[in-house]
Amino acid sequence: MKKILLLLLALSSITSYSQTDQEILKKIYSQSLTNGKSYEWLDYLSNQIGGRLSGSLQAELAVQWGKQELEKLGLDKVWLQEVMVPKWVRGAKEYAFIESSKKQTTNVNICALGGSVATNPLGLKAKVIEIQNFEELEKLGEAQINGKIVFYNRPMQEDLISTFNAYGGCVNQRYKGAVEAQKYGAVGVIVRSMTLRLDDLPHTGSMTYDNLPLQKRIPAAAISTNDAELLSASLKLDKDLEFYFKQSCSQFKDVLSYNVIGEITGSEFPKEYMVVGGHLDSWDLGDGSHDDGAGVVQSMEVLRLLKVSGIRPKRSIRVVLFMNEENGLRGGNKYAEEAKRKGENHVFALESDAGGFTPRGFSFDCSDANFNQVLSWKPLFQPYLIHYFEKGGSGADVGPLKTASNVLAGLRPDSQRYFDHHHAASDTFAAVNKRELELGAATMASLVYLFDTYGTNPLSKQSAVKN
Amino acid sequence: MKKILLLLLALSSITSYSQTDQEILKKIYSQSLTNGKSYEWLDYLSNQIGGRLSGSLQAELAVQWGKQELEKLGLDKVWLQEVMVPKWVRGAKEYAFIESSKKQTTNVNICALGGSVATNPLGLKAKVIEIQNFEELEKLGEAQINGKIVFYNRPMQEDLISTFNAYGGCVNQRYKGAVEAQKYGAVGVIVRSMTLRLDDLPHTGSMTYDNLPLQKRIPAAAISTNDAELLSASLKLDKDLEFYFKQSCSQFKDVLSYNVIGEITGSEFPKEYMVVGGHLDSWDLGDGSHDDGAGVVQSMEVLRLLKVSGIRPKRSIRVVLFMNEENGLRGGNKYAEEAKRKGENHVFALESDAGGFTPRGFSFDCSDANFNQVLSWKPLFQPYLIHYFEKGGSGADVGPLKTASNVLAGLRPDSQRYFDHHHAASDTFAAVNKRELELGAATMASLVYLFDTYGTNPLSKQSAVKN
Repeated sequence: MKKILLLLLALSSITSYSQTDQEILKKIYSQSLTNGKSYEWLDYLSNQIGGRLSGSLQAELAVQWGKQELEKLGLDKVWLQEVMVPKWVRGAKEYAFIESSKKQTTNVNICALGGSVATNPLGLKAKVIEIQNFEELEKLGEAQINGKIVFYNRPMQEDLISTFNAYGGCVNQRYKGAVEAQKYGAVGVIVRSMTLRLDDLPHTGSMTYDNLPLQKRIPAAAISTNDAELLSASLKLDKDLEFYFKQSCSQFKDVLSYNVIGEITGSEFPKEYMVVGGHLDSWDLGDGSHDDGAGVVQSMEVLRLLKVSGIRPKRSIRVVLFMNEENGLRGGNKYAEEAKRKGENHVFALESDAGGFTPRGFSFDCSDANFNQVLSWKPLFQPYLIHYFEKGGSGADVGPLKTASNVLAGLRPDSQRYFDHHHAASDTFAAVNKRELELGAATMASLVYLFDTYGTNPLSKQSAVKN
Repeated sequence: MKKILLLLLALSSITSYSQTDQEILKKIYSQSLTNGKSYEWLDYLSNQIGGRLSGSLQAELAVQWGKQELEKLGLDKVWLQEVMVPKWVRGAKEYAFIESSKKQTTNVNICALGGSVATNPLGLKAKVIEIQNFEELEKLGEAQINGKIVFYNRPMQEDLISTFNAYGGCVNQRYKGAVEAQKYGAVGVIVRSMTLRLDDLPHTGSMTYDNLPLQKRIPAAAISTNDAELLSASLKLDKDLEFYFKQSCSQFKDVLSYNVIGEITGSEFPKEYMVVGGHLDSWDLGDGSHDDGAGVVQSMEVLRLLKVSGIRPKRSIRVVLFMNEENGLRGGNKYAEEAKRKGENHVFALESDAGGFTPRGFSFDCSDANFNQVLSWKPLFQPYLIHYFEKGGSGADVGPLKTASNVLAGLRPDSQRYFDHHHAASDTFAAVNKRELELGAATMASLVYLFDTYGTNPLSKQSAVKN
């Protein structure tokens, strides 16, 4: 009986949208696919500005560009929000080789991890110990590790369907590898690149030294998966081989940068804020098209699509182009701090930071009541093959906005190709498909439209409908 | 009340699979993603053999390769099925330009359509009339068309979510354009390439002259979308411009070729046949990786996955690598003819011929009872993000196997990028993602496994379960 009741409840919730909603979603998708701006914007951001690490000239150009483009959209307000960001610079291209005990050398492809210290200007050469995880590190202890380069070579798990889960299972090697290895006297760290492909591209990404004093910090670099395989195979044949690498990266003082914000002020509930965003900064090896140029232009496109579709939102809708997601999250934290300081009620926030691939749906960080409301909208999305609505994470930049009652969400595009490009030189405009990008923007705009229409307090709404 | 009954029925059908099925699907996906052969096979087929139009040396190499690889799998039988196929050869690279009325020329990118006649060896030059559809052709009539080149420029509709629907709305221009235009005295036909991208690549594909005698046949070519836009814009400025093109393709006599077939003979119902297939031939401009190398290697992989997953099928399962889908469908027709002649009962056939992209699900050509059985399996596929189960077409090669009671199906991968590559020089191995390909193979193997386990006669099965 309980099942039947649940089913009837499910059935009744099918009526929680209108034919108007169907028509508006159709209009939004059609506008994005036939007359969209996202791809053209991404072309500029990727090809005219390029990689834009926090504190770089390109990051500042991207801020100016974002502001100018938002101003052209005729929003109610556009402004810059100051935020101090770290400035780390890669310097000269890294150089590395494997040297056998017979002094034969083979060059390999590496890149410094973001935040790493440089090696000695002449480079660092040491014996190598390959390990899979921190437990192994502990077991080997100082006796085995002291004076060596620790080579973290745990691959991403291939049989996980979501590549983000596979990434999640590996990324501690990159993020904490140096600080863990240093405890046992390691002199450097080489980490297998976080990708499921076997290729020659090293993938950078952030790492931490926690509070380790400067003189104790050891340099850390990523090695391409092909070269990780080579190094591993070489170690099996010749455990006395040495690894040489040289990198000349440096950390400067924090510099002033900005979140870029645009707003359409709500017509009925101007004090209820809805945020849609992506991060404007990117790593420096590619042009940051998927991570997160796509999210930036899709978020801008959400506001444009609402406008050209003739939707006057009831709630205030902001697009936020966050600065410094990659190596600090300063922009996301700053936005949330300011929102709290001003007492702004953020009822909904959506981030796109998982690539510009075909959208499959969203993951949500919210109450069951809010999640059930979302599920009741599923049929609206079916014509667009949007089927994935699950509880789970949202996005790094919007995370700090979490309250007990609001809804955070993340766009979930198809993930299969994402880590082929993530933080590597192959994250370029050519890897983004125009239609996939546009479908993502329309999917985001549709969800924003629905939350604007029905609010994020479904229980009070249902009683309102009954009255 | 009826609704509740339907719901209860739906609920009850949720039990129509077992935990064993869940485990087997998990094994199949895991095998494909961690230890698959499909990508390695595709590498060989694409990079060592390449484009393989029916009747070409490459098509014959592909036949030999397919047979050898299937033999290595230790199937119960592997054989070649003779089939006579057309042999059309492109010849020298096509050449074309727009010549303004002031005799300024601009080279453009074209390719002959498959089956087209050559131009005069010196080429063909004529004025151009741009049209959108056959109705317009009729309205303009011989007065406007006689002696001209007809330029079909109806683009694929951008706001359709399935790019196959957009293709379906345009492809008559390519297939029937010449025979229709010839009725009004046209001397040649230029067709806008069937792609949603704007780029420089012409996309070939089959066309027909129906029963038009040889001397009445007019040459037909595809033009890249960028150049179609250019030609259209040029015509608006200068309606007296001329278009020149030269192509030296030729049609030879039919030649002997083969379908490649492998079988695992069923342990309980060996006379019930299940087919999984793709087509071995491809167009000649690229290497045919997506169309349909992907379908070929995925189909081979289905049988391998069943074997390595320890599944001994109850029904006979055949992989069929069909010859000549692109310009004749002789292989598909031949296979069905032979099946009919031998009285083989084909209960299920599945084709993969929509690219090697992330699988989304299947479309089915079957009865409601069979379709409902499929729907009852949906939860099994949810962990793999396979969500699309719709009635609709299956595949060109398996279509001729249709009976009143059997089930035909087609794999439905994500379609957004497919026509970027379809029949063009960009249909290459590099455009295929390993994991996407492997997920497709596992998805196919899972459906084959389920039909093998539960049969294709769900009504009789349900009573059997009751007894």
